[in-house]
Amino acid sequence: MAVYVTGHKNPDTDSVTAAIAYAELLKAGGEDAIASMQGEMNPETETVLKRFGVAAPEIMTDASGKTVALVDHSDLNQAPDNISADSVVAIVDHHKIGDVTTNNPIFCCVKPVGCTGTVLKQLYDAEGVAVDSKIAGLMLSAILSDTVNFKSPTCTDEDKKAVAELKEIASVTDTDELFMEMLKAKSAVAGVPAKDLLNRDYKDFDMKGNKVGCGQLELATLDQVADIRDDLYKAMEEQKAAGGHHTILLMLTDVVKEGTDLVVLSDDASVIEGAFDSKLDGNSMWIPGMMSRKKQTIPNMQKAFGC
Amino acid sequence: MAVYVTGHKNPDTDSVTAAIAYAELLKAGGEDAIASMQGEMNPETETVLKRFGVAAPEIMTDASGKTVALVDHSDLNQAPDNISADSVVAIVDHHKIGDVTTNNPIFCCVKPVGCTGTVLKQLYDAEGVAVDSKIAGLMLSAILSDTVNFKSPTCTDEDKKAVAELKEIASVTDTDELFMEMLKAKSAVAGVPAKDLLNRDYKDFDMKGNKVGCGQLELATLDQVADIRDDLYKAMEEQKAAGGHHTILLMLTDVVKEGTDLVVLSDDASVIEGAFDSKLDGNSMWIPGMMSRKKQTIPNMQKAFGC
Repeated sequence: MAVYVTGHKNPDTDSVTAAIAYAELLKAGGEDAIASMQGEMNPETETVLKRFGVAAPEIMTDASGKTVALVDHSDLNQAPDNISADSVVAIVDHHKIGDVTTNNPIFCCVKPVGCTGTVLKQLYDAEGVAVDSKIAGLMLSAILSDTVNFKSPTCTDEDKKAVAELKEIASVTDTDELFMEMLKAKSAVAGVPAKDLLNRDYKDFDMKGNKVGCGQLELATLDQVADIRDDLYKAMEEQKAAGGHHTILLMLTDVVKEGTDLVVLSDDASVIEGAFDSKLDGNSMWIPGMMSRKKQTIPNMQKAFGC
Repeated sequence: MAVYVTGHKNPDTDSVTAAIAYAELLKAGGEDAIASMQGEMNPETETVLKRFGVAAPEIMTDASGKTVALVDHSDLNQAPDNISADSVVAIVDHHKIGDVTTNNPIFCCVKPVGCTGTVLKQLYDAEGVAVDSKIAGLMLSAILSDTVNFKSPTCTDEDKKAVAELKEIASVTDTDELFMEMLKAKSAVAGVPAKDLLNRDYKDFDMKGNKVGCGQLELATLDQVADIRDDLYKAMEEQKAAGGHHTILLMLTDVVKEGTDLVVLSDDASVIEGAFDSKLDGNSMWIPGMMSRKKQTIPNMQKAFGC
């Protein structure tokens, strides 16, 4: 019976490419393996597969009656539906150890590195299997994406070593250019309604009884949104009116310059200025170094609200 | 903070030697690591550590406030008390994936091979760390023990390869002799009361309302119990009278000859003869190939009782 190799729900580039790369490694070892994914690809992943000329994996969302190898996750709520302790035959990941258990010993390799692609490159090496040049391009792209071109705090020397070796195999001379191509695909805003952009990656928080919403758009350059800033602000106003928010923030994060232009709509903007020790210029302020909503924006806001 | 490396509760040779070997590997990588175990060593493990001149690990049963690396298990009920999702920093194992979860990515390497020692040998190789000759002796012993000198169905080609390499490093020329030394230590009966031998590895089962007890002694040779068979039978009679059993079996398993001399005390011995298609000679019968209570003895008994 073929093993379905699959990444997590809402697949990203690492999940999709790791499924392809691990399926190839299993096949090199004589196993019957099928690369799969639990939903449609995002624009970044589409760009990567197109660039390296690799077909999309098939979609598989139900593990009933199947054997599966999990890549890029080991949590049941991220795994295909109806997964059981008997269906999982392998795990390759770089996240925290999740709640998947098995009834029999299986192969499981998890490493605290920036990307599953890095773990897979090491497994290819350990098993003495040559990486196909197209597959190398996919793994390379995943590492650049997951480590934000080496800028993420999750990036390790092992990720950099894997990229150095994979770029040779894939004949990619300029990894910055590859990263920018992915980033542009990921952050494309043309033709997308402002309301959808605001909600592309958006969360509400309760801060001492005040409803605070925060969206984030990761951009290759702020120029991408230069013409639609008024539309985005209008979408924030509509969302605030409908939701009864105290504050709505929109992080326009420039991944290359490593900072965020923070658009602020608030009942008391001085609290927000105080939170980030900065002054609004119109309805926004540039905050150097701000990249992470979870690690930077929200903690400062909670502190300002006395949470 | 030093990492405590520990095997499972009721430590066996693999758990103890894997803790020592993995602590050494971590130290070779510049980490501060302490080999530990969750209880006293059994006679087999004592023999192994004495033979290769390695000191016993310290006993550690409470993970409160410590960071721990788990070897030879990944189940919470086998782990030290008060373990938390934040205390586990690494897992190296060869069992099914257990229920340990973490809050952060950690190193986790689990392989479906016969022994943690085999996984560790591969990790030393992958990291280019030379195995110390004494440590090689410990790993070698663990693999021979866990694979029952390659006879267990869990034994893989990877275990055999690891043994071939480790015996060179440890300068062990005769692994059969090493295995026999361990087996004799493990199966020592001299001076042990018959009642204790009967209960050394004993379980009761309910079979259609009939209470059936079954003990097992793994021996290097049946000669080890030649002089105490009457005492063992008397212990079975006392246990049957006190427990109201229908049947008590004692498996005297000859690990070298790969068979069991089954001692039978039963209200209806013909059922037991039928279960194993064999005839009693006095109060016992030799059953070639019978090694596993769980996989061979109990299933046949259940069938005979119509369970």
